[in-house]
Amino acid sequence: MIVVGVSPQKDWGGTHYLETFKEYEYPGPVYPVNPKYEGEEIHGYKVFGSISSLPDDPPIDLGIVAVPAKVTPQIVEELGQKGVLFAHIFSSGYSELGEEGKQLEQQLLEEAKKNHIRILGPNCMGIYNPKHRIAFTHRLPLVSGPVAFISQSGGNVYRHAYAAFVKGYHFSKMVSLGNQIDLDLIDFLNYFRTDPETKVISMYVENIRRSGNEFVQLLKETTKEKPVIIWKGGKLEAGHSAVMSHTGSLAGDITLWKSMARQTGVILVNNFKELIEMIQTCLLYKIPNNLGTAIITGGGGPAVELTDECEAFGLKVPRITEKSQKMIKDFIPEVNSNLSNPFEFGANGGHENMIKVMKILDKEPHISSIIMTNRPEWYSSEKLNMEEVVKSLANTISQDSNKNLISIYSSFGVRKDTVDVINEFYSKTRENGIIVYDSAQAAAKSIHRLWSYGNYLKNRGNKIN
Amino acid sequence: MIVVGVSPQKDWGGTHYLETFKEYEYPGPVYPVNPKYEGEEIHGYKVFGSISSLPDDPPIDLGIVAVPAKVTPQIVEELGQKGVLFAHIFSSGYSELGEEGKQLEQQLLEEAKKNHIRILGPNCMGIYNPKHRIAFTHRLPLVSGPVAFISQSGGNVYRHAYAAFVKGYHFSKMVSLGNQIDLDLIDFLNYFRTDPETKVISMYVENIRRSGNEFVQLLKETTKEKPVIIWKGGKLEAGHSAVMSHTGSLAGDITLWKSMARQTGVILVNNFKELIEMIQTCLLYKIPNNLGTAIITGGGGPAVELTDECEAFGLKVPRITEKSQKMIKDFIPEVNSNLSNPFEFGANGGHENMIKVMKILDKEPHISSIIMTNRPEWYSSEKLNMEEVVKSLANTISQDSNKNLISIYSSFGVRKDTVDVINEFYSKTRENGIIVYDSAQAAAKSIHRLWSYGNYLKNRGNKIN
Repeated sequence: MIVVGVSPQKDWGGTHYLETFKEYEYPGPVYPVNPKYEGEEIHGYKVFGSISSLPDDPPIDLGIVAVPAKVTPQIVEELGQKGVLFAHIFSSGYSELGEEGKQLEQQLLEEAKKNHIRILGPNCMGIYNPKHRIAFTHRLPLVSGPVAFISQSGGNVYRHAYAAFVKGYHFSKMVSLGNQIDLDLIDFLNYFRTDPETKVISMYVENIRRSGNEFVQLLKETTKEKPVIIWKGGKLEAGHSAVMSHTGSLAGDITLWKSMARQTGVILVNNFKELIEMIQTCLLYKIPNNLGTAIITGGGGPAVELTDECEAFGLKVPRITEKSQKMIKDFIPEVNSNLSNPFEFGANGGHENMIKVMKILDKEPHISSIIMTNRPEWYSSEKLNMEEVVKSLANTISQDSNKNLISIYSSFGVRKDTVDVINEFYSKTRENGIIVYDSAQAAAKSIHRLWSYGNYLKNRGNKIN
Repeated sequence: MIVVGVSPQKDWGGTHYLETFKEYEYPGPVYPVNPKYEGEEIHGYKVFGSISSLPDDPPIDLGIVAVPAKVTPQIVEELGQKGVLFAHIFSSGYSELGEEGKQLEQQLLEEAKKNHIRILGPNCMGIYNPKHRIAFTHRLPLVSGPVAFISQSGGNVYRHAYAAFVKGYHFSKMVSLGNQIDLDLIDFLNYFRTDPETKVISMYVENIRRSGNEFVQLLKETTKEKPVIIWKGGKLEAGHSAVMSHTGSLAGDITLWKSMARQTGVILVNNFKELIEMIQTCLLYKIPNNLGTAIITGGGGPAVELTDECEAFGLKVPRITEKSQKMIKDFIPEVNSNLSNPFEFGANGGHENMIKVMKILDKEPHISSIIMTNRPEWYSSEKLNMEEVVKSLANTISQDSNKNLISIYSSFGVRKDTVDVINEFYSKTRENGIIVYDSAQAAAKSIHRLWSYGNYLKNRGNKIN
């Protein structure tokens, strides 16, 4: 690993990469380069005065370049001469600033081609590969997982890394693309398509640099194998101009992206929150057979709200069969309850009745999703064992019923004394295959999207689940 | 206060009301009634054996009835005979269960008319009036505020009471309507229209019992005076059936409600979260002159997302004037920044530059909303004084510019060590007239709705702000 552009005085830019290699105990050689500080040590690594003076053995694959934009073509040339295969250009100040920067990109690309080196960026954070101890910032877990993330925004790789940590999923690799003058979205999509460590591919995309047909073809090949979730940034007028300034590119029309998604089975989402929810959904849930949803909650008003929200975002809340209704009436009185879906138990609720109802719902053919509302604070105040409660809920769904059990928990503020019990609830539900969404809307959007993906696969004759 | 139907063995129903009168130190007489426990004490109140045996002086206004539904007509008769003016029927088991329950409601109404007593409910939680120490549950603050809430769901009055407490606003009065066989939505709307303590009227409505024209006329009269926010429950097919089971009524078509809102200036919202956000918005913000929005954030990807979300929900993100752009370029370099809106400062950010930019934006005529993203954890880790930071942000907006300063803070999990700093941020922003929304979407929806309300008022020739 070569890092060009480091300084003992600042802890960002190239120096920040040094710091992360140190923190993650990157096992290969790390060579900081800056003639000004030749011979000094930064974060325990000895600084070299030039690229040409670096040891030739072992050969180095990647150079991280964090010097002023104008100098980057020369550095790329030197890295190429040294036999380095890839240059990640961290520096910014290119096409995102206008014509002059565009010419600089052209120059950079020419040097790269001449010297047989491929470029990631410029204007990007680079890669996160937990298995190989490479990351772009501190305190990320060195745990590999099934999710790939390709992002045209460095800010979004940061956010995603931290959010995933909280939500409990991990990455095979993350890559921040920046201005994509050489290696681009399509190169990485193609890589992740066959990467055995990657089960779900997610992206933040502002634009594509190559022909739409090539992208569509590749997406079709990929979605057969694994779900591809795309969050398209720069959807409308001002969003376009924000993209222009961000990565110097033109954002495509969102209607084109929607039609592309329909053709290819891509799952389109609208924002960061939806991206995270969709990834969790793809990781934990089976593709539902149908849109039928059962709703179980404690009060009439909330039951109406959950039903409204599910229906507004594409799910159906059908009545259950007469037979099942009768079975439920056997043990729950009708007063203050609604026993045909949505299920609203009022004072007749309680954990045991809920379990009984869920076991009956598990046999309903027109239901694929069972949505319950939970209040972890209540389990705690009742001194129930959280692990047992969550397990007993999860166990109501049999292995072969192909149903997903979904939890909704929303709160309007945080209290110090309930943080632990809430976090325990999140982790126990996750362990038991249950996602906790913060609203019925969030659940409905994700489940509907998963169903649409399944529908696409079925129509193409592909196997699902 | 008379409470009919109490028991020393259970802590819900009528007994729960006794408990709350005790907790809130309700200053008037409280008479529990149950022949079974005559002479005993419950929560410190002596139980009477019959309504007729209660003292005649002072006269009692309200009787709370929590006995089996079948007995309620007789109790209402007795209350009427005693000269009580209002009966709140807590009991359920009426039209929400079908034909038999409907007849019971009819009987109840006849008794009420015959005996000159008005009925609230049945099947409802009743009222919350902090000023007069009346509430339907524990631990609500005895603090009056400017918000009225009328709800056809008891569950939603509970949720609203707790959520408002967290969000820092208070109620003039809350009323849970239940099946509305006598006193209904229109009666209470009419009351709150002229109630000097009420500045914002909010409602959860499933249906109306009287003619739509009467409702529309009253709404038109009311919105001239104060904003009316309606959350309509039971919007689509299954939502309708959930409403039927909930309060025994038919939900009206949502398209009719939308057209009604356009005619009357009512602010329609879709769910509980939007209701709460809209109330905060009406309480803290000025009606904006236009939809122009400035966005200030730290990174390119987030800037694109905020812009997309604002535009998707009706706001505009225009470029600012050349003059202002020049002023900003004087102190922020262009590299890694976007200086024409959305504003993205990257490494050039920092609190002081942000303040300078906001002061320039305060003079922009086409901007009414300034949206910033904040991370309270960062203020804390930088050891900044939260109060000073928030004040310095709030002070960038001059009194006469009619602009709203908006904060977005979203997080994907809670950590015990940051709860305090986050809650401090919420309270300091509130004190300084800033609302913290959890997403740009939430902010955009609320601001757009407030603007629409202002537009309605302007078109009708009413004064705004």
